[in-house]
Parts: sequence; C-alpha cells; structure tokens
Amino acid sequence: MPVPTIEWKNNAIQLIDQTLLPVQYKVLTINTIHALAEAIYMLRVRGAPAIGIAGAMGVALVANNYNGSNSDELDQIIQDAIDVLGKTRPTAVNLFWALDRMQAKYDEIKTRPVFEIQKLLVQEAQNILEQDKDICRQMGQHGEAFLPNNVSILTHCNAGGLATGDYGTALGVIYAAAESGKKIHVYADETRPLLQGARLTAWELQQANIPVTVICDNMAGVLMQQKKVDCVIVGADRIAANGDTANKIGTYSLAVLAEKHQVPFYVVAPVSTFDFNLASGKDIPIEERKAEEIICPFNYQIAPKNVDVYNPAFDVTPHELIAAIISEKGVVRNPNTESLNVFCA
Amino acid sequence: MPVPTIEWKNNAIQLIDQTLLPVQYKVLTINTIHALAEAIYMLRVRGAPAIGIAGAMGVALVANNYNGSNSDELDQIIQDAIDVLGKTRPTAVNLFWALDRMQAKYDEIKTRPVFEIQKLLVQEAQNILEQDKDICRQMGQHGEAFLPNNVSILTHCNAGGLATGDYGTALGVIYAAAESGKKIHVYADETRPLLQGARLTAWELQQANIPVTVICDNMAGVLMQQKKVDCVIVGADRIAANGDTANKIGTYSLAVLAEKHQVPFYVVAPVSTFDFNLASGKDIPIEERKAEEIICPFNYQIAPKNVDVYNPAFDVTPHELIAAIISEKGVVRNPNTESLNVFCA
Repeated sequence: MPVPTIEWKNNAIQLIDQTLLPVQYKVLTINTIHALAEAIYMLRVRGAPAIGIAGAMGVALVANNYNGSNSDELDQIIQDAIDVLGKTRPTAVNLFWALDRMQAKYDEIKTRPVFEIQKLLVQEAQNILEQDKDICRQMGQHGEAFLPNNVSILTHCNAGGLATGDYGTALGVIYAAAESGKKIHVYADETRPLLQGARLTAWELQQANIPVTVICDNMAGVLMQQKKVDCVIVGADRIAANGDTANKIGTYSLAVLAEKHQVPFYVVAPVSTFDFNLASGKDIPIEERKAEEIICPFNYQIAPKNVDVYNPAFDVTPHELIAAIISEKGVVRNPNTESLNVFCA
Repeated sequence: MPVPTIEWKNNAIQLIDQTLLPVQYKVLTINTIHALAEAIYMLRVRGAPAIGIAGAMGVALVANNYNGSNSDELDQIIQDAIDVLGKTRPTAVNLFWALDRMQAKYDEIKTRPVFEIQKLLVQEAQNILEQDKDICRQMGQHGEAFLPNNVSILTHCNAGGLATGDYGTALGVIYAAAESGKKIHVYADETRPLLQGARLTAWELQQANIPVTVICDNMAGVLMQQKKVDCVIVGADRIAANGDTANKIGTYSLAVLAEKHQVPFYVVAPVSTFDFNLASGKDIPIEERKAEEIICPFNYQIAPKNVDVYNPAFDVTPHELIAAIISEKGVVRNPNTESLNVFCA
C-alpha cells in the first residue's frame, strides 16, 4: 500500500494534493469546509471512495470546529456543510452515500450535548475511513482470484491507493495479486484531460515496485490488437441497479475495445458505489467540466483559445460489456438487474 | 483552403513550423538538407502528402545549392540527400514515393549539364506540389458525395491543408462539402501525444469558418454512444495491397468504435499512399517515438520521469473496418485485395 491519501489528524483533514503529483509530493492541511470543497472540485482529492471519506470528514470538521454550545447553530452548520459538499461533484455516488451516513449518524445523536456530537461525528468519519481500508483488502482478495500468473493488465485513470483509504479498488486487486506472488505487468492509460493515469497510477505502482508502462488513451486499441492485454480492470463512480457503470471518461471506449478483442473487462467497486435508485446508466448524472482542462492543460495552450470543447468527466459502460463486478461482498459475473438484486439482497 | 503549408521560394523551402501552432504562426526558411531532416523528424512539417512534397523539395534543394559543375559530385550529393531524408520517418510511404520519383527524374536527366539538372529537379518538386493540389480537389469532390447535409463528422489527427499541398485529404472532403453548401459540424480528436487535432485541425477549421469541437481521444466512444457522430473520416500514411491502412495512432480504436456503433468509417488518401509491395498491414513499419513525447509534453512533466512508455506513432486499421477508401482516382467501397487490384489496374 502506498502513502495514505487522506487522514484525520490534529483536528483537521490531511490529504495529498494530487494535482501536484508526480512532480511534487505535498500534504495539505484542510481546516475549513470551503478549502475542502475547493480541494474536491479541483481534484486535489479524487477517486470515488476517497471523495466519500473526504465528504464524511468535512461534516466532522465543521462540527468539530464549532466553538459554541448551541445545538441549533451546530445543526445549521452541519446542514450547510452537507449542502456545500454535495454540490462539488455530481457523478460519484460514494460522496452522497457518505454524506447520508453522516446525516443519519447526526440524526441519531443530535439531542446529545454538543461536545458529544462532535466526538461521535469525528468517530463516524474515522469509521468510514477504517471500513474503506477493510473493504479494499476484501475486494483485493476477491479480485485477485481472477488473475493468472504472468498477467498483463490495462487500467484507466487511478483507482488505487490515492483514490481510496487503503490500496485501491482496481489497483487493490493488482496489489493483492502481487502480494500473493503473481507476476504482473500494468499498462496505465494516461487518462486525458487530467492525466490521473500518467500522474497517479504510474507513480503509485512505481512506489509499490509493480512494473508499469504508460500509454496514451488512444493506444489501448493497438495494444489489444497485438494481444498485449489479458484483461482490463477499472474502478467505478456509480453503478446503476442493472450494472451499468459510470467511470472516468474513456472507460466505455475501453470496454468496446475489450469486447472486440475478447478481453475480459472487470469493474472493482465497494457496495457504496451502487445506486439502486437508478434503474440504468442513462439516469446517472454526468459531470461536464471546464473547457480549459482540455485547451490549456497545466497552463500550456494546445488548442485555439476560443474553440468549442466537449469535456464530460465520465461515461457509462453498459452492463453487457462487463464480465464481472468485484465488490467487498463478492463477485457478480455478467451483472444485470436480476443478478445484482440477488447479490445485494 | 487555409494558408500554404510548404512552398518553394527564393531558392529555398518555406514551411509553416507546425509545432508552434496554434499559439504562434511562423514560416521557416529551410536552406539545408539537415534543417529539412530535422523539420520532418520533429514534425515541423508533417502529414503524409506534405512529407512527400518536402522530401521532393529537399532533393531539389541540395541540387540547386550545388555551386560546382562536377556531375559526379552532384550525383553524390543527391544520393546522400535521398538517404538522409529516407531515414527521417519510416511509416508514411508518400515520402519514399516522392524520393523515388525524384530519383527517377534525376536518372532520366543525369547526363545533362549541371544547371539543367538543377532546373529540372526544382521543376519536378514543384510539379509534385502542384499535382498534390489537384489531387486534393479531386478527392474532395469524390468524398463529399458521401456526406449528407447537416452532417456531424469525427476526424483524427490532422489530414487537412497543413498535411498536404492544398486543402487536405480527410479535411478536403469536409471543405468540398462545405463549399457545396452543406452544413457540417466536425469533432476533432485532440490526438495525443502531439495533439495535431487540437493544435492543427481545430486551428485550420476555424480559419475556414467550419464549426469544430475539440474532444480528448478517449471521448470518441461516448460521442458515438450518444449518436452524435454520423461518420468518421481520416487520412492515411500507408495503405497495403489489401486495404489495411496505417494512420496516426488511435485510428484503429476509432474504427472499432465506429463498427460497434454502425458509423461508416472512411479513409481519404492519394494513390501515392498505396504500397502494393505489401500484401497486408502487418508488413507496414510502425515508427516508435521517444518517451519524452508522452512524459513531458511541451516540457511539462506529467508522469514519473523514469517510467516505461510505449509510444507507437501509428496503428493499422484492417480493411474489414473501412467502408470506403477515397482517392483522386475515385472510391473503393469495402476495400480488399481484389477490389483494390481492379481499381488500381
């Protein structure tokens, strides 16, 4: 497992500023809800499970920062924080799951004295982090059974230690397989526009001494054509009731390429990523981000300044293209509404 | 038609330094064979037909620069130049086609006085440029018949005016359709690693007032999933006898996505792009380029410095995925060894 992405320390949130990796490793101390909202929107902290943990810690933070003893005041502060955090990023459901869980805990304890509420909300956020660590390990164990020795894996974006409380979802499976002695080679899509694959996945796999080769996103097809990819493993930001999976933009193209080349395509995600309120992927809200992310990456202009741009941050892979969804509760092969219903019952 | 990419002027080659676009528009004057080889390798001039023209002008340049009257000396200079230019980029066959044509012209006239050889080689290079202009127009006419009104086209890399002597191969079809009054919208893949789509295609379509939207390469799948693409049109760097087509890396992935979504996939290329010496695409040499193009685009580090990288500049699309190849001689639907044989006979 690489370095911890997010921690609760000295009454504040500490998180790695992932926008600076791999050039600079810097831990930010977050003391206010607005600094946290900025960090989530700007992707200083990102990855569906990590955003969930960050959201929970944000609720704990505002409660813990409160210096008074007026329950109504504290209630308003907590509701405002949940509101602000809920507006940062729309697609990953783990954020809303975590905010709901903090709300439920708060509702349960809101009649207690302020100092107790503060302590229990901090504890709940820490529980979410600790549980995420266990979940990563369980997913790793379930998933690594799918991997033979001497396997070549293609992954997209970063679904690793930097995206979770522990060693990741997709990369957790890879770490677990490596720990069990299997020889592994990873191809990491660079993942435009924000390059989480080149910047983060390559960096953390190097920390873990797992061989990694970076490719541009448009090279995945030729790799599969050359039979250099044994399977594709990705994380998820939201999974609808029928198994349709929203994940980082480009995931759908990979799934189509994998189907064409008969390469199995696996999704690894905790149960908190499922959204049974949505019948299918077409209901998942897809975040569109600013044109500058494409036109001026890292302040270097690569397209005409005023050009029109389409910049969806996610896409939806239909369940038919997914060989299996791997969660902490186990594995669902050929996911669909029926199989997921049975699995999650 | 946008600005001229390459010209013979004042006894030198003038070309737009395409690595500086769209931020800076700068015309280079090339006086030596080594400056030209550098310009081709560094992609200051690029695009299969334009590289062919540049190669031909390079042979004319060394001949024209020769100040002596010794035919043997001139012969050595010309053969050295052909040798140097032939080593710059291996995939696009138009370069070798143009060098062969200059060699043939030289062989035909080599017994004449030096000043005549000089004049005739310069004339031959200019003929190649002028013919390329006609060819672009012919391809445009043949191709635009495929486009309905109100059409949305996805293209990759730059196969436009900047890649040819006139208004392009793939983009030539688009310009011809626009000139005939059709309403067109173009999606331009940014085309990592060197971003010819974002930098060059977007720029030249803007110059021509054709609506263009830039996307990252990994967004093509979701566009097709959303039925926002009516057809894909690309250029080519080399086409084998069976129709297998080498083109900019990422083209193959687009062809697979197009097949999945029943979107027709067209290749536009002059006959000089065909290589009937190669039975299929598996014999086409694929240029691999330096890791720095991926790790440090424009000197900004986006991946660990020592990370392994795979950087093929081209891929090969099998002919089964190509709805038609459009050349100056006409159109071959469902290209294969038989249909191309008949067509080119």
